[in-house]
Amino acid sequence: MSSEFGEKIKISIFGESHGEAIGCVIDGLPSGVKLDIDEIYADMSRRAPGNDKFATPRLEKDIPHILSGVLDNTTTGAPLAMVIENTNTRSGDYSNLMTLPRPSHSDYPAYVKYNGFNDVRGGGHFSGRLTAPLVFAGAVAKQILKTKGVFIGAHIAQVGNVCDTLFDKNNIEKSLLDKLTASKFSVIDDSVEDKMRAEIEDARMAQDSVGGIIECAVIGVPTGVGGNMFSTVESRLSSILFGVPAVKGVEFGDGFAFASMRGSQANDPYCVKDGKVAVKTNRNGGILGGITTGAPIVFRTAIKPTASISQPQQSVNLQTMEEETLVIKGRHDPCIVPRAVPVIEAAAAVGLLDIMM
Amino acid sequence: MSSEFGEKIKISIFGESHGEAIGCVIDGLPSGVKLDIDEIYADMSRRAPGNDKFATPRLEKDIPHILSGVLDNTTTGAPLAMVIENTNTRSGDYSNLMTLPRPSHSDYPAYVKYNGFNDVRGGGHFSGRLTAPLVFAGAVAKQILKTKGVFIGAHIAQVGNVCDTLFDKNNIEKSLLDKLTASKFSVIDDSVEDKMRAEIEDARMAQDSVGGIIECAVIGVPTGVGGNMFSTVESRLSSILFGVPAVKGVEFGDGFAFASMRGSQANDPYCVKDGKVAVKTNRNGGILGGITTGAPIVFRTAIKPTASISQPQQSVNLQTMEEETLVIKGRHDPCIVPRAVPVIEAAAAVGLLDIMM
Amino acid sequence: MSSEFGEKIKISIFGESHGEAIGCVIDGLPSGVKLDIDEIYADMSRRAPGNDKFATPRLEKDIPHILSGVLDNTTTGAPLAMVIENTNTRSGDYSNLMTLPRPSHSDYPAYVKYNGFNDVRGGGHFSGRLTAPLVFAGAVAKQILKTKGVFIGAHIAQVGNVCDTLFDKNNIEKSLLDKLTASKFSVIDDSVEDKMRAEIEDARMAQDSVGGIIECAVIGVPTGVGGNMFSTVESRLSSILFGVPAVKGVEFGDGFAFASMRGSQANDPYCVKDGKVAVKTNRNGGILGGITTGAPIVFRTAIKPTASISQPQQSVNLQTMEEETLVIKGRHDPCIVPRAVPVIEAAAAVGLLDIMM
Amino acid sequence: MSSEFGEKIKISIFGESHGEAIGCVIDGLPSGVKLDIDEIYADMSRRAPGNDKFATPRLEKDIPHILSGVLDNTTTGAPLAMVIENTNTRSGDYSNLMTLPRPSHSDYPAYVKYNGFNDVRGGGHFSGRLTAPLVFAGAVAKQILKTKGVFIGAHIAQVGNVCDTLFDKNNIEKSLLDKLTASKFSVIDDSVEDKMRAEIEDARMAQDSVGGIIECAVIGVPTGVGGNMFSTVESRLSSILFGVPAVKGVEFGDGFAFASMRGSQANDPYCVKDGKVAVKTNRNGGILGGITTGAPIVFRTAIKPTASISQPQQSVNLQTMEEETLVIKGRHDPCIVPRAVPVIEAAAAVGLLDIMM
Repeated sequence: MSSEFGEKIKISIFGESHGEAIGCVIDGLPSGVKLDIDEIYADMSRRAPGNDKFATPRLEKDIPHILSGVLDNTTTGAPLAMVIENTNTRSGDYSNLMTLPRPSHSDYPAYVKYNGFNDVRGGGHFSGRLTAPLVFAGAVAKQILKTKGVFIGAHIAQVGNVCDTLFDKNNIEKSLLDKLTASKFSVIDDSVEDKMRAEIEDARMAQDSVGGIIECAVIGVPTGVGGNMFSTVESRLSSILFGVPAVKGVEFGDGFAFASMRGSQANDPYCVKDGKVAVKTNRNGGILGGITTGAPIVFRTAIKPTASISQPQQSVNLQTMEEETLVIKGRHDPCIVPRAVPVIEAAAAVGLLDIMM
Repeated sequence: MSSEFGEKIKISIFGESHGEAIGCVIDGLPSGVKLDIDEIYADMSRRAPGNDKFATPRLEKDIPHILSGVLDNTTTGAPLAMVIENTNTRSGDYSNLMTLPRPSHSDYPAYVKYNGFNDVRGGGHFSGRLTAPLVFAGAVAKQILKTKGVFIGAHIAQVGNVCDTLFDKNNIEKSLLDKLTASKFSVIDDSVEDKMRAEIEDARMAQDSVGGIIECAVIGVPTGVGGNMFSTVESRLSSILFGVPAVKGVEFGDGFAFASMRGSQANDPYCVKDGKVAVKTNRNGGILGGITTGAPIVFRTAIKPTASISQPQQSVNLQTMEEETLVIKGRHDPCIVPRAVPVIEAAAAVGLLDIMM
Repeated sequence: MSSEFGEKIKISIFGESHGEAIGCVIDGLPSGVKLDIDEIYADMSRRAPGNDKFATPRLEKDIPHILSGVLDNTTTGAPLAMVIENTNTRSGDYSNLMTLPRPSHSDYPAYVKYNGFNDVRGGGHFSGRLTAPLVFAGAVAKQILKTKGVFIGAHIAQVGNVCDTLFDKNNIEKSLLDKLTASKFSVIDDSVEDKMRAEIEDARMAQDSVGGIIECAVIGVPTGVGGNMFSTVESRLSSILFGVPAVKGVEFGDGFAFASMRGSQANDPYCVKDGKVAVKTNRNGGILGGITTGAPIVFRTAIKPTASISQPQQSVNLQTMEEETLVIKGRHDPCIVPRAVPVIEAAAAVGLLDIMM
Repeated sequence: MSSEFGEKIKISIFGESHGEAIGCVIDGLPSGVKLDIDEIYADMSRRAPGNDKFATPRLEKDIPHILSGVLDNTTTGAPLAMVIENTNTRSGDYSNLMTLPRPSHSDYPAYVKYNGFNDVRGGGHFSGRLTAPLVFAGAVAKQILKTKGVFIGAHIAQVGNVCDTLFDKNNIEKSLLDKLTASKFSVIDDSVEDKMRAEIEDARMAQDSVGGIIECAVIGVPTGVGGNMFSTVESRLSSILFGVPAVKGVEFGDGFAFASMRGSQANDPYCVKDGKVAVKTNRNGGILGGITTGAPIVFRTAIKPTASISQPQQSVNLQTMEEETLVIKGRHDPCIVPRAVPVIEAAAAVGLLDIMM
C-alpha cells in the first residue's frame, strides 16, 4: 500500500496537510531535459486554491522548492526531489483526536487502517493538498512528453447538470489543448462557463457542493504504445487516475455509452490518411486491445461532489460510539472540478510517460 | 509491458489462441489451502463458449491441467502453474500474414507494436480465450477469499437497452451472490433474461453485436483495507479490470452519476449498526479515500459490443496500403457480456486477494 | 517471496522435482528474435545430470516444450512459456511426511515456512532441477544479447583445492568464451581438468562432496549500463546469482582481495585505446559506481559442497523431536560445480538482459 | 535504473553532494511506532565524517529534518520524508565540466550514462554522502526490528592486513552487538583497534588508501523467513548491500571458504536446543535454501580502498581525449571501512525489514 507510482518513472509523494511539508521524488527521469520552471508554476497555479480570476497568480505559499536532480534548470538524471513547505504547521494546542469522522471522507476508514495514529489535521496524507506534488510531477512529465510531440489537455465536461461540448475525438488540435491548459476554468465552449459558475454558486448558497466530469485528451502518441492483459494503456492510466481524490469513474472513448450500442455503431473502420493507416472514427478513444492506435487518447473521469458541506450530517462519535450530528466549519470549495482539471492532466502525463519511456 | 499482475500474489498469463496451449502461473499463494477443483471447473464452465443452456457442461476441450504448486488438492506454497491445451493448433497451410486488420480489434496496433511478428491466428495473445486462465486464477482466489469471509458475485446489469435491477448497494446477501455465481446467465431479476436474450438475438439476426454493463459486488471485506494515493482499492481493481478485453469503463459506487449530484445527496452518513460504525447508505461503493469502509464494494464495468461482426466493414490492406472491404467469416458471439460475468468476478477476486494478503 | 525475477524481462519459474512438470514463463521479450533451438538444447545439456563425457547428449527426458510466444522459431512478443515434463511423477504409495530434515538443505526452514505443506519429494520447488528452466531462459537471453554484441562464458575456477587459471580481466577474447560454453567441464587451463576430476572422485570415494568457485565473464557490454544506489549492476546480478542453489558468495573484480589492497594497487587508471577511453587494468570487474565501464564484467561465485552426502549425519526427528542419525541413500553428485557453470551463465544473461532492455 | 529499494517498505533516496539537500522517503512503514530520535542521531553520528574520537558528536551540519510521516515522534503510517540540507551549495563560479575522470570512481561511466548532464560536484548523486539517508532509514528500520526481537550489529573484520576476531556464528549475544553499535570504531577484539588505526595512518602517510572487510550479524530472526529462487534472503540482502558504494563482495556464512571444504565439514547438523530444532554449527550463516534457520544471519562485505588518493594517477582528458596525469587535491578519508560499518548495518536492517513485513 504505497504512495508510489510507476515502473520506469517512479513518483513517490509524501506529506500531510498540516505537517512540515509536502513534496515528491521523481526517479528515472532522463538527463539533459531543460525544464521551463514558469510553465511548472503555471500548472500549479491552475490547481492552487483561491487564485481563480486573479490576474497575477500568488504562489508565495506554495512555491515548489527543487532539492535535487536539476542543475541549471536541466535534469541531471538523478532523482528529482521537490518540497513545498506548509505554512499552517503544528499548533501547540492541537489535539490529534479523531472523534466525529466526516461522512464520505477518508476519516473513518483511515482511522481503522492506521489504528488512530494517522495525522488527521486537514485530512493529513489524504488531503487534496497532496495533489500539488502530483501536478508538479505532471508538469515535468508534460515537458518531456512535448519533446516527443505528445500534448495533453483537459476540460470541465460537466458540473452538476451543465455540460460543455465534448472533444471531437478524432480531430483534436494542439491549439485547443493550448487554450484549455492556459485557463483556470477550462472549457471548450466559453459560453458554458457562466452557467457552470452559477451551478457552483447555487450549491454554495445551499451550503452544499456539486460534482462533475473532466474529459481529457492526449494527442501525438504514436501507434503501438502499451500492452495487452494487465499492461493495457487503460489499466495504467486508470490506476493513476483513481489515485486522484474524488475520482469515482473512468471511461475511455465512448465508455459506458458502448453498453447500448451495436457493434456496427461502435467499431472504428480504417482508412488511409496521409499515406498511413488511420481510424475513420475514434469511438475507442485511441486504444484497441490496450495499445494505442495513433488517434487521440480520450477519456473521462467522474468527480464526486466535495464531501465537506456545511449542512448538518449524521456521524458517530468514535469515543462514545454514539450517533451525533456533525457540522463542518470553515469555508470549503463547493466544487473542486475546475481545480481538478490540471490534476487529471498531470496524472495522465505521469502515467503516459511511464508507459512511453 | 507485461501479462503479469500483482504485488504479493503474482499472476502471469501466457498463450496464444492457436498456439500449443494457454495457461498461467500464480506465485505467492499461501500453503495449505484446500482447493475445490469442481468449483474451479464450474467457474470456467460459466465462461466457456457454447455451454449456455446445456444441462451438462462439456469442458473436455478446456480442462485446466495443474502442473505444480498443488499436492493432494492442497496448495504447497510453490508457484501454481496451470495449462490448457489448445486443440485447434498449427495447421500446415496457415499463413501468419496480417493483411486486413479487423476494425476495433487489436489487430492493427499489435501489428505495429510487434512489427508483424505476433501470432495473429484467432487474435493470438489478445484473444478472449486468454481470459480462461484468468477465470482459473480468479476461482482459486475466490476460494482463499472465502476462508476470510469474502464473497464475490456479478450480474448482467445491462445488454443493449435492457437493464437488470441493480444491487441494493448497502444490503447485499451472500445468497444473492450464490445465485448469481451458480448461473450461466446471471441476472438479479429473472424476468429480464428473456428480454436480454431477445436483444442479443436481434443483434445476431442483424449480423451485428451488442454491448452491456456488468455490475459486481464484494461482501465481507473488513474496514481499513487498501491505501491512498496510488494504492487505492479503485486503482488496484481498475488496473486489472481494464485488462479484461472489451472493458472500456469502470465506476465505483454511483460513479458517473455523482457528476450531477449535490454533496448532500452523495454523502454516506454514519450510523451505529450491531455496535459498530457503519454507513447508512453506500453511494461510494464501499471505498472512501481509497480504503474500504466495511460496506459492500460495488462497481460497474462497461463492455463494448463484440468487434467481430458479419457486416462488411472498411479496412486497409497492410500490404498494398489501399482501402478494402472486410467481411469477417465464421460464427461470432453477438454478445460476450453473459460470458464476461465470471471474468469480471475473477479479476475482482485476484485484485482483492493481492490487496488483502 | 516469489520465484520471479526482473523488471523489464520477467522470468517466472515453477515446478516441483516430483510434480507433473517444471518450467518457466518469460514475459517482455522483444518480438522477431529468431531462436536457435539447438543452442538452447546444448546449454541445457551442459547442465543435465549424467551427460558428462558422453558424446551424444541424451535429453529425451528433459526436452523443453515451448507452449507459447514462439512461432516459426521466432519470438512473437507474447510471453514465452516452456514446460519440461517430469517422468518420475507421483507414486501412489508416497507419503509427503517430512521426518528427518537433511542438514544444510532447505528441508527444515521450508517445513517451517510452509507449515509442512510443501512438496518434499526430491526437494520439491527447492530442487536443483529447478535450474533447468533458468538455463533455458538464460539460453534465450544469451541469444538476444548476442544480437547486441554481448557474450558470456564461465569456467570452474576452483574445485576443492584445485584451481584453474583465472580470466585476464582486461583481455578476454570471444574465442575463449566460445571454448568454455562448448564444454561440459569448462576450464581455461585444460591441464587442470584431470586434477579437478580426481578431487571430485576423492570426495565421492570418501562418501563426501566438495565445493568450488565459478568465475564468469561478460564481454561487449557498452559503457554506461546500470545505475547507482539500489540499481547497480552488482545489485541486480547478485540478486539473481544468489537465487542459484548453493551459491553463498559473490564478488566482482578483485572482490574480497580488495580488503588487503592499497588504493594505488586497486585503482584502474584510464588510457586511450582505439580512440576511446578505456581502463588500463580492470580490477573493478567492469563496473564503477554500479555502472559498466566498457571493460569485461568479471565476477566469481562461491558454491558450497553438495549438502547430500552418504555419511551418517545428525538430524532431529520432527515428529518425535528427538535427535536421530540420518543416512541419505541413493547416488548423489559429489560436486555440482561443473554442472552449475551454465546455470551461472544463465543467471548472468537473464540479469544483464533485464538491465540492458 | 533507480535509487529505490523494497517491495513492502520502499526507500527512495535523493540528493547530490553539492546540491540543495539530500534525503529519503520511506513508504510503507507501520503506523504507531514510537521513534527514538536520539538513537537515530547516534547511528548517523557513527557514519558522519570527522567525528571519530571526539566526545561530543557535532551533527549540526547534518541534522536530519523529518518533513512528514511522524507526529509526536510516532509514525503516522504515511510516507516518512527526511531531508538533510547541504551547507556547501552552489558556488557561482562553479563549472560543471567533467574533464579528468578520477580512476575507479563513477566519474567516467556516469558521464557516459548521463551524457554529461549529471552533477559532478563532489560525486553528485554517487557521493558517499548519499549513505547518510540510508543510515537514517536503517536506524528507523532497526527500531521496528527491535520490536520484533531482531538486533543487528557489525564490526571491522579487516583493514588492510589487520584482522579482528570473527563472530562465533552460532553464539552471538545481544550485548556484543550493543557494544559494536555503541562504538565509532567497531571491533570485537579491542586490542586490534590500534593496529588498524596504524594501518590506516600508514596508508595516509603514503598518500594512499586501504580497503577492508565488514562482518555483520543479525540475531532474533525467526525460522522460515525468506523464500527460494529469486527471493532468497541472500538475494534480497546482497541486492541492497551492493548498493553501498565501494562494496565489491558479499558472502554468507563461510562464503568463499566453502570452495575448498568437503560437505562433511560444511554441513550444519541439527540438534534439539531448548525443546526446539537448532543447528549445531552455523556455517551457512543462518540461511538454507534462501530461508532463515533461526540461527544468526552472518555475512561479510568486501570494501575496496578509497578511490580518491593523493598520488598522481593516469586519466584521460574527456575534452581533448589525451592521456593526462591527475592529482586529486584536498583531504580524503584514507579508509572508509570504520564509517561504513553503520551503513552496512543500515542496509541489512532495511533489507530485512522489507522481507519480514
